[in-house]
Amino acid sequence: MTRTVYINGQYLPEAQATVSVFDRGFLMADAIYEVCAVLEGKLIDCQGHFTRLRRSMAELSMNLELSDDALLEMHRTLIEKNALDEGLVYLQLTRGVVDRDFAYPPEDTPPTLVAFTQDKAIVESALAKRGARVATQPDLRWHRRDIKTTQLLYPSMAKMAAKAAGADDAWLVEEGYVTEGSSSNAFILTQDNVLVTRELSTDLLHGITRAAVISLAEDEGLAIELRAFTPDEAKSAREAFMTSATSMVTSVISVDGHLIGSGAPGPVADKLRAHYLEHSRAHAM
Amino acid sequence: MTRTVYINGQYLPEAQATVSVFDRGFLMADAIYEVCAVLEGKLIDCQGHFTRLRRSMAELSMNLELSDDALLEMHRTLIEKNALDEGLVYLQLTRGVVDRDFAYPPEDTPPTLVAFTQDKAIVESALAKRGARVATQPDLRWHRRDIKTTQLLYPSMAKMAAKAAGADDAWLVEEGYVTEGSSSNAFILTQDNVLVTRELSTDLLHGITRAAVISLAEDEGLAIELRAFTPDEAKSAREAFMTSATSMVTSVISVDGHLIGSGAPGPVADKLRAHYLEHSRAHAM
Repeated sequence: MTRTVYINGQYLPEAQATVSVFDRGFLMADAIYEVCAVLEGKLIDCQGHFTRLRRSMAELSMNLELSDDALLEMHRTLIEKNALDEGLVYLQLTRGVVDRDFAYPPEDTPPTLVAFTQDKAIVESALAKRGARVATQPDLRWHRRDIKTTQLLYPSMAKMAAKAAGADDAWLVEEGYVTEGSSSNAFILTQDNVLVTRELSTDLLHGITRAAVISLAEDEGLAIELRAFTPDEAKSAREAFMTSATSMVTSVISVDGHLIGSGAPGPVADKLRAHYLEHSRAHAM
Repeated sequence: MTRTVYINGQYLPEAQATVSVFDRGFLMADAIYEVCAVLEGKLIDCQGHFTRLRRSMAELSMNLELSDDALLEMHRTLIEKNALDEGLVYLQLTRGVVDRDFAYPPEDTPPTLVAFTQDKAIVESALAKRGARVATQPDLRWHRRDIKTTQLLYPSMAKMAAKAAGADDAWLVEEGYVTEGSSSNAFILTQDNVLVTRELSTDLLHGITRAAVISLAEDEGLAIELRAFTPDEAKSAREAFMTSATSMVTSVISVDGHLIGSGAPGPVADKLRAHYLEHSRAHAM
């Protein structure tokens, strides 16, 4: 089966899913995106993703005529047309098609909206079962990481560098502190059982799953500190994990080759993963 | 007349010039580019641009089967098909079309090569005649600016912020020093007639026009210092200008509203512009 892709109101076969080379998303990474996880054909935390999309749009003065309801309807149509049971819906919004210029085009330029599905094993993730090995990499990204743009070359480079170092993924480090993963937020559980994750700022993505997991951890009665931590703190932590829409909660079992705890997924991360899965299923749309 | 655009060996009408939404250039800004100026239908400094393209490719482990000769032939064909007299040829290379993943695709994935022309008044540039007003903006870009990638959202944002401040363009400032312009390198001429421009590093683009203008200035017997300068030094400079492939040498007449010299293009910048134009015409291909 070929995938059906959404482009500007049309549902097209994957092979016909194209954009102009003059799209500012292609020429200038003038584009934002969101990823919603799908479990049993239903969307997880999608209102949070739509709200963050609106925030990115506002930060970049981008327009979109579609309401959140229309976006939801489009997502559901894609899931149905692609018979997606588990995986994700990816959405990208660009400033549209115009002759190349650093200056923005007129405000009434129609934006480009693209969306597609991907199959992905989320619940039975092999990486979540084994736990991820991370390697630290310098954080060389731009300084508005709170805006979810398609300027993803460096996260991609960092992931490749981490793989070359024998790890599964990268944790990015700036001025001695972990900012976040290449496509996830980073958490540690200290030896004193305090859950630590970096406070929100322009330095990192305001993760939807991050916020949900903090809330579930609070419900668990866990002590939580919102602050930056160093790679050394991570190495001496009791547990570590990362969060994202499609990795949900995935244990980190080593940092730069240094095992965390026993080198297996920890009980607190496992519990938070289970609770987030429950929460997700209960609120799936 | 509709433009003819080059895509992966084909010359297509602009309206048919499309790429897959799964192109990594569109989804992840995993793409590099070059811009060659065109005067009287001939390419300026194009070998320098091809050499820099190869450098960007090497830094990012990108492949391209076409030789420099084949690229030159393609550029000439585009100029001819579009009857371009004065303007530019834009070229973009991406890591190709694959299912979205932060990890790079297999090395044998065919890259995407796109090129098109744009008309632009280069010699009789209104901005060069009047001189450009620049506004300083914080440099929030990623930290490998020596690689010419399509991660251009921030330069675009900075240019819009400069325009909102009543200027024509932005000069980007990091840790108190000017790195470069939004799409140009930055020069000042001190009151002591020393030409100053930032030394090469990963902080700025290794401008082809920058290098040519430094060489012409040396031929002129100008004293040259390759070092960073502050916005205050620029404000108290005798002259200031910017260089890029299509702005060539364009005087900067004010920084943050502060007039430089008399507030008109200066004689040294004018002379360097004239010499670069002569040099360009003499070596055009």
